[in-house]
Formats: sequence, C-alpha cells, structure tokens
Amino acid sequence: MKTKVSYQGERGAFSEQAAKSYFGENCAAIARETFHDIFDDVAKRRSTYAIVPIENSVHGSVHQNFDLLWKFDLSIVGEIKLRIKMNLLALPGVTFRDIREVYSHPQALGQCETFLRRLKGISIHPYYDTAGAAKMIAKEHRKNAAAIASSQAAADYGLKILHAGIEKDHRNFTRFLIIGRKRAQPNRNPKTSIIFATKNIPGALFKCLSVFALRNINLLKIESRPIVGAPWEYLFYVDIEGDAVGADCLNALKHLQELTSYYKNLGSYEAGKIVTPK
Amino acid sequence: MKTKVSYQGERGAFSEQAAKSYFGENCAAIARETFHDIFDDVAKRRSTYAIVPIENSVHGSVHQNFDLLWKFDLSIVGEIKLRIKMNLLALPGVTFRDIREVYSHPQALGQCETFLRRLKGISIHPYYDTAGAAKMIAKEHRKNAAAIASSQAAADYGLKILHAGIEKDHRNFTRFLIIGRKRAQPNRNPKTSIIFATKNIPGALFKCLSVFALRNINLLKIESRPIVGAPWEYLFYVDIEGDAVGADCLNALKHLQELTSYYKNLGSYEAGKIVTPK
Repeated sequence: MKTKVSYQGERGAFSEQAAKSYFGENCAAIARETFHDIFDDVAKRRSTYAIVPIENSVHGSVHQNFDLLWKFDLSIVGEIKLRIKMNLLALPGVTFRDIREVYSHPQALGQCETFLRRLKGISIHPYYDTAGAAKMIAKEHRKNAAAIASSQAAADYGLKILHAGIEKDHRNFTRFLIIGRKRAQPNRNPKTSIIFATKNIPGALFKCLSVFALRNINLLKIESRPIVGAPWEYLFYVDIEGDAVGADCLNALKHLQELTSYYKNLGSYEAGKIVTPK
Repeated sequence: MKTKVSYQGERGAFSEQAAKSYFGENCAAIARETFHDIFDDVAKRRSTYAIVPIENSVHGSVHQNFDLLWKFDLSIVGEIKLRIKMNLLALPGVTFRDIREVYSHPQALGQCETFLRRLKGISIHPYYDTAGAAKMIAKEHRKNAAAIASSQAAADYGLKILHAGIEKDHRNFTRFLIIGRKRAQPNRNPKTSIIFATKNIPGALFKCLSVFALRNINLLKIESRPIVGAPWEYLFYVDIEGDAVGADCLNALKHLQELTSYYKNLGSYEAGKIVTPK
C-alpha cells in the first residue's frame, strides 16, 4: 500500500514536490486546504504523515505551523530542505513568442523580477497561488499565458516547462518537517526539537540555554513566538544537535524542565538533506 | 509640509492604516511596490520615514524586513502594534443580500472562515491582495461582489463597510517599525534592537546572552534568521529593554561586541502601543 502523506495547497504546490522528494514518486500525496487539516489527517489516521513547511531561507518562518506542533500531540519524524526552483510553464505546443501574460503568486513574481523585466510586451498578473495559476492556464486552455510554478505543477497539469530556474536567487530553500504519530529513532545526524516557555523575568532564557551550554550541546536554531491569545508573550522553539536518548541530551532536557513553565519535546529525527528538483 | 511616509502595498493596505495611525491622518502616505523600495525611499531622502511590518501575532515574522534592516544604514525610530481588523466592503447602495461573490487574500479569507461559512449561495474567490480586491470591486463597479479588507481600503476606494471585524480571532496584531535616517531619543519605555552573528560553536549564543543576564537586562524578543546566501547559518535579532545610552545597556552592548563576529545596533525607540482601527 502506498504511504499516505498530506500536504497543504493545490496539486503542484512546492509541498507536494517536497513530499515526493522525501517519500518517492509513488507515495500518495493528498492535497488539503489548510495546515490544520494536514495535522488533523495524521491525528485521525487518515494519513500516515504530513509534510509541513516550517522555514524559508528568504521569507522566514511559517509560524502557524509552530502553533500546530504545539497544539497537536504528534511527533517530528524527519526533515527535508527543498530548493524552491521557479519555472515558466505553458500549454504544450505553445512557444515563448506566443506568451502575452504571466500569472503567479506575488512572491514568486518578485523572485523572478530580473527574468520578467527582460520580457517585452508581456503583462504580469498576480495570482493567489503558484500552482493555482498553472491549474487555471491548463483548465481554461490559455494559449497566450504562462504561469510561474514548480516542475511538479507542470507534471500535474500537463504543462510544458518553457524556462527552468528563472528565480533571481538560486539560494532559496524551504525546510519541511515530516510529522507522524510515533517517535522516530534516528540512526545518524540526529537533532531534537523542543518548545518551552519561561517566565518574563530577566535572565530566564539565559538560564534555560545554560542547560545546553553546560553540556556542550550545540543549539541549531532558536525562535521566539508570540503566544496566540496572549500577543507579545513568547514561547521558545529550539533545535539542538543530538538525540533525546543520548545521556547528555537527556540530562539537559531534564534540567530544562526544572526551569520552564511549559515544556514539550517534539521529537528527535535525522537532520534533512538539501534536495534540488529537476 | 506633510510628513512623507513610504509603505509597501496597494492604497488601502494595512500598512497605510498603520502609517496613518502613527503619524495622523494628514501624513503623506506613499504606496510602493516592494519592501526594498520603501527602505530605499528613506535612504535616498524621497521620504522621511518608512513603515515596515515586522511580526504578526498569527502569521509570524516578515523576515525579508529583518534582512533590509541589516543591509540599509538606517535606524528604527518607533513602533506601533496595529490590530488587524477585517471588514466586508461593497459599493455604496449595495446591500448584504445583493452579494454573490467575496474576494480577498487567502489568509484574510482563512481568518474570516467562520463568518463566510454562514453565508449561503455565495462563492469565495482568492485574490492576490486584500486592498487589491477592494480596488478591483470599485474600479469594475461590481455590484454583486464584496471584498474583505481594511477600513482604510473602504475610505480609499469609496466603498461601504457592510460588516466590521469579521475575523475569527480578534487577537490578530501586526507590529510595525518606523524607519528613519537619524537615531531617535526615546523619552519613555525605551527598547533597543540589535543584530549579531556568533560562530557556530557550542555555547556561543549562551555567552552572548550572558551580557544581558549579568546586568539584569530583560530580553524582549529573540529570533534566529538564516543568513541570505548562506542558508542555515544564522544571524540573531534581539530586542532588549532599555536605551543604548543607559550605562548598563551601553556596557552590555560593548561586552557583546567582544563576543560576536558581526554586530549592528539598529536603534533605540519608544515601545509601541496597541492601536485598534475604527
């Protein structure tokens, strides 16, 4: 049976591409409307995994997903870093000279600014979604229009890639987390993600971080996140090097719980590799 | 002469509302296409200030703007926390019963989900921008359509507010920074923002935070941000309580510079108040 993986967005979204890069082309990638839906799919056993964008190297963190990690009783079991490669897509048989209109999400249009500026006599149209733009061109059979979207969208909607990799900065990556019901047991390059809250007193965070510094445990990432419903009070999301079964790490996490008003271990997993789509 | 303030987005964007809330209705709010444009306006003296969204209590940080703070030689001179109030807007004379279509940005549609679910026989259309949806309805004189956008958009495009505050969670705020060329001298509730980079060695961040903990200086916010061009290496953005002219704070910042591989003081300014638009 195929592995069921829920992702947020239209078919052809970068999240679908991430799912197929991680689980292979044969996984059953299930498109869902909201991030809440994909966490719920895993919790209610409609899917085995969800794939969740957590941080983009240009646009920053997807904070809503930190909240969902906090709310749902699920584990992080894996990670993948996908290069976000933008492509100009059109109907088969259409050539570059036929294009009069380009549709995509404003962020994608912004990333392809340099490429778009070279095109003359072409009008640019912001659209709500990259994959949505590809879908519209296929569905309405628009022969004079192109979309900027993933190569996955080209495959899903039967479009042709006229130009690949048209983004200005090729160092645009999104880090996705794989969410499951059971804890993972990473064999190599383990990392562990935790959430905690401190009292809002001087030095509170400093004391919390001491539990890692005193044991030479490397901090990979730290983020403070306003608590929903209590704007400008903060939860901390921390990634550390190591596995929560190793002695040092285990001791550090026990020590941390002495110092925090809230603590949750999100799971240990193998640090993700960078993947570049075709 | 009116104070010139650049903001990113269409006329009627929440950023325009923030500008008018901070500087008063009479400021000259200038709509610009990109965040880079508004920083550039201040640097090249086309505007006195720029107003920059930096963090939303639901959707997280606007990391691109952290990068621009890093790149441009400008200062943070003020702060405002604007409640993001969503409204259903239509042409004057149109009643609620006439509405058949609702247009807005997918995030805004998501936030008004509960309200929209109660409407029957109405179709929902994602649009690239909230203010853009309001503009389209006014321009195309769409009598059977409504937009979800700011009250500022209603004022700017001559639309009527059919329903105000239709968002699910009223605790949705965006924190905006005011950017200028000169340093501010805050009289009360001062805070200071800094950027620094540490070497990727165990305990490096811990040592950096010790400079504040040792002097009982409160940390208001910390965020790690991948360095553009070096994905997954991090800069730290930190807000501390106090003014960089106070002795403790001054000493802490001097101490910090002994420990960092990169350091920049973004300025001291008065902590922003929460403002709810009409």
